[in-house]
Amino acid sequence: MDGDHSTRSDGIATALSVLGQRFGPQMLTGRDARMHRAHSATWLAPEPADAVLLPQNTNEVAEIVKICGTYNTPIIPFGTGTSLEGHVNAPLGGVSLDMSQMASVLQVNAEDLDCTVQPGITRKALNEDLRATGLFFPIDPGADASIGGMAATRASGTNAVRYGTMKDVVMDLQVVLANGEIIRTGTRAKKSSAGYDLTRLFVGSEGTLGVITELTLKLFGMPEAMSAATCQFKSVEAACEAVIATIQYGLPVARIELLDAAMVGAVNAYSNLSLPENPLLLLEFHGSEAGVAEQAQAFGSIAEDTGGQDFQWTTKPEDRTKLWQARHDAYWAARALKPGTEGISTDVCVPISKLAEAVQAAANKAAELNLAPAPILGHVGDGNFHVLLLVDPNDKDEQARAKTFLDWLYDAAISAGGTCTGEHGIGQGKQHYLRKELGPALEPMRAIKTALDPDNIMNPGKIFTLG
Amino acid sequence: MDGDHSTRSDGIATALSVLGQRFGPQMLTGRDARMHRAHSATWLAPEPADAVLLPQNTNEVAEIVKICGTYNTPIIPFGTGTSLEGHVNAPLGGVSLDMSQMASVLQVNAEDLDCTVQPGITRKALNEDLRATGLFFPIDPGADASIGGMAATRASGTNAVRYGTMKDVVMDLQVVLANGEIIRTGTRAKKSSAGYDLTRLFVGSEGTLGVITELTLKLFGMPEAMSAATCQFKSVEAACEAVIATIQYGLPVARIELLDAAMVGAVNAYSNLSLPENPLLLLEFHGSEAGVAEQAQAFGSIAEDTGGQDFQWTTKPEDRTKLWQARHDAYWAARALKPGTEGISTDVCVPISKLAEAVQAAANKAAELNLAPAPILGHVGDGNFHVLLLVDPNDKDEQARAKTFLDWLYDAAISAGGTCTGEHGIGQGKQHYLRKELGPALEPMRAIKTALDPDNIMNPGKIFTLG
Repeated sequence: MDGDHSTRSDGIATALSVLGQRFGPQMLTGRDARMHRAHSATWLAPEPADAVLLPQNTNEVAEIVKICGTYNTPIIPFGTGTSLEGHVNAPLGGVSLDMSQMASVLQVNAEDLDCTVQPGITRKALNEDLRATGLFFPIDPGADASIGGMAATRASGTNAVRYGTMKDVVMDLQVVLANGEIIRTGTRAKKSSAGYDLTRLFVGSEGTLGVITELTLKLFGMPEAMSAATCQFKSVEAACEAVIATIQYGLPVARIELLDAAMVGAVNAYSNLSLPENPLLLLEFHGSEAGVAEQAQAFGSIAEDTGGQDFQWTTKPEDRTKLWQARHDAYWAARALKPGTEGISTDVCVPISKLAEAVQAAANKAAELNLAPAPILGHVGDGNFHVLLLVDPNDKDEQARAKTFLDWLYDAAISAGGTCTGEHGIGQGKQHYLRKELGPALEPMRAIKTALDPDNIMNPGKIFTLG
Repeated sequence: MDGDHSTRSDGIATALSVLGQRFGPQMLTGRDARMHRAHSATWLAPEPADAVLLPQNTNEVAEIVKICGTYNTPIIPFGTGTSLEGHVNAPLGGVSLDMSQMASVLQVNAEDLDCTVQPGITRKALNEDLRATGLFFPIDPGADASIGGMAATRASGTNAVRYGTMKDVVMDLQVVLANGEIIRTGTRAKKSSAGYDLTRLFVGSEGTLGVITELTLKLFGMPEAMSAATCQFKSVEAACEAVIATIQYGLPVARIELLDAAMVGAVNAYSNLSLPENPLLLLEFHGSEAGVAEQAQAFGSIAEDTGGQDFQWTTKPEDRTKLWQARHDAYWAARALKPGTEGISTDVCVPISKLAEAVQAAANKAAELNLAPAPILGHVGDGNFHVLLLVDPNDKDEQARAKTFLDWLYDAAISAGGTCTGEHGIGQGKQHYLRKELGPALEPMRAIKTALDPDNIMNPGKIFTLG
């Protein structure tokens, strides 16, 4: 077992005393500072760490890790607190390692389409920094998350269908291991067969194997042109058919997002739009001027064949921005449907052939459980969608029905050959579903965790508990 | 240390006796059968296993692994024997696990662009099987390797620049672990954040962590059209400049290969072509009819700006096939330059900005060491290239100079921010260079190996030796 807080508390007290002497004002122990790092966009209760440390560089991280190791003190890396499954909670106490002071771009190699950054930089700050180079970093999970946090949770988002997920764009990591040793996991070579793929092992490890202190990332040339398109469908099935045809045709869409009628309604109200309240596909195309026009038209034909209506596309930046800002605000738009409720953002990913059935069944199930409105949106080019549940924190019965829905949804995704998490990660909230999904594979995962972090100081209690 | 053969030999003898009783004609012990599985396209001396086992299904693999585990007997998975760094050798004896009887396509999900196959199927057989679906599996390392072997070595090849490497196209694996347990590492979801990325850990693990018994792979729609192009350059630098401009422009080339003048000469002689003996780029474009013409023309402009000459392109299948067959035969063409010599295919990958310098320096160094002709070819869109050394097995001095060259080449690649292996893997031949490249990262790799295979029965002596 992970050991409870009390058995660790003597060690933690000593660690804090040593860390306080060494790091002085870089250590915060006030309640607000600690609660801020435990607060994330999740329905799980915050569990603050005993102190917050603000390292300035890799050597300081290594020093902190060694001190924590000596006194059996948990370390919980913190980026911006936008994760959704309790990743930044400190159920066993310990130290929240706030990486916000390590937020520099260390190197941009424009010819090689790569850059090296510190983990605390956010994706928007990175893209601001890159603007003059004509390059951009494409992974966009919605929130302005830190790059380190995005790597740790294997984030993706709206344009993964074209540019991949964090696993695809991280080339090399610098990591401080649980014993305080500093390693690099790769090189700047675009491909490699040099030993175990530690890069991909640390991407998605949720801080449980080490602290990411530098990342080398693939960049992409800013497309010469972008176009955005919207198309309505009479049913979610018809919209999904259009998505399948688009992917099969090989149309290189940069984004293809589904909003169900409930979500369109929420977005209309929140962002002052007047989209017809039908299932909607929202697309973006990247390429040359001629290319994005051709792509939009090709999608138009596909949409026509699958019953799409009122297909519109535009290359006007202001129209594109307005649409995509509305999409990015969808979470808040949904929350606004039932003020005072907690939002639970679910996250399943299924083979695309099962998508229409899965989305429709989820909408039906939410209605059956009296959980409507439960708007749905999805990165449907990848088969990934989110049902947003809006739950009254004072209504025990609604909470129980929400739990019934979650169990049903994740079972359904796993039965369809999919996963209980396309992009949010496991954290504290999904350990039960991970066991259902991968069962026997949990044993080698635990063996790896124990091999790299024998004292279980790196973000303990996340992904799985130890036996 | 790995333990030498003699300390294991009693166990191996007992294991063979148990395996022989259980598997009868599925076990081969004749010298030819054993030598065949130790023979690969490598300069390393063959080290045959004590027996060859031919499992028919996953349960038989698990049975074999359990018996071998009981008697501390090494297991060396074998695909087609086309690996290059001694991966199929049995330095500590044991059992060669020939996967050729497990070569079926288990499932094709055309709507989802994926399939599930057994590891023994070769890439050509898979593509033959897929022909009627309009889909194809793009990874092409040249040799008609088995899919399981390609995953185990993280293979890639000529069209990785567009379609990625094995790490990008494997979605899920079934693996028999060293303790005989059977796990699945993923699902058919296109993306996932569900726990540690065991899929990517097993891809490239060279059989040292478990035996791959099933693979779920991403497939791609057959392009509507393909075009091939050739362009000569006065220097390797000029050719590399054209490559950099092509990648930066975002031209979605399917293949972009460099042959230096020596390699063009070898190919001319071997394949009866009459290409001018200058550095040559050989390209392939995939897309719509209009798209491949547009891409070829766009490359033509880039080539013109960077001093390309005699740019030619064609969509005629017979011309394309002839050119690419010649490229695929380049290894044998090079070998034919000095009959009776051993071929050593080196394999470095550097950031693309360092490519021209690295290729030119390698050619100079080979000349300086009196190793010419040492033809060079490269998957240059990824910065990956191979210098082919042709070494007389009876000339000790030439062998020593070849060793000097290898040390120099891998040091140079690592110093340039690159890797000692873009696609061949570490095996027995590159352990020294892996230590130079990733140094401190070897410790967590060893810890993972020990955690998953405490008795070191899975392909021992590959990637690294144990402390």
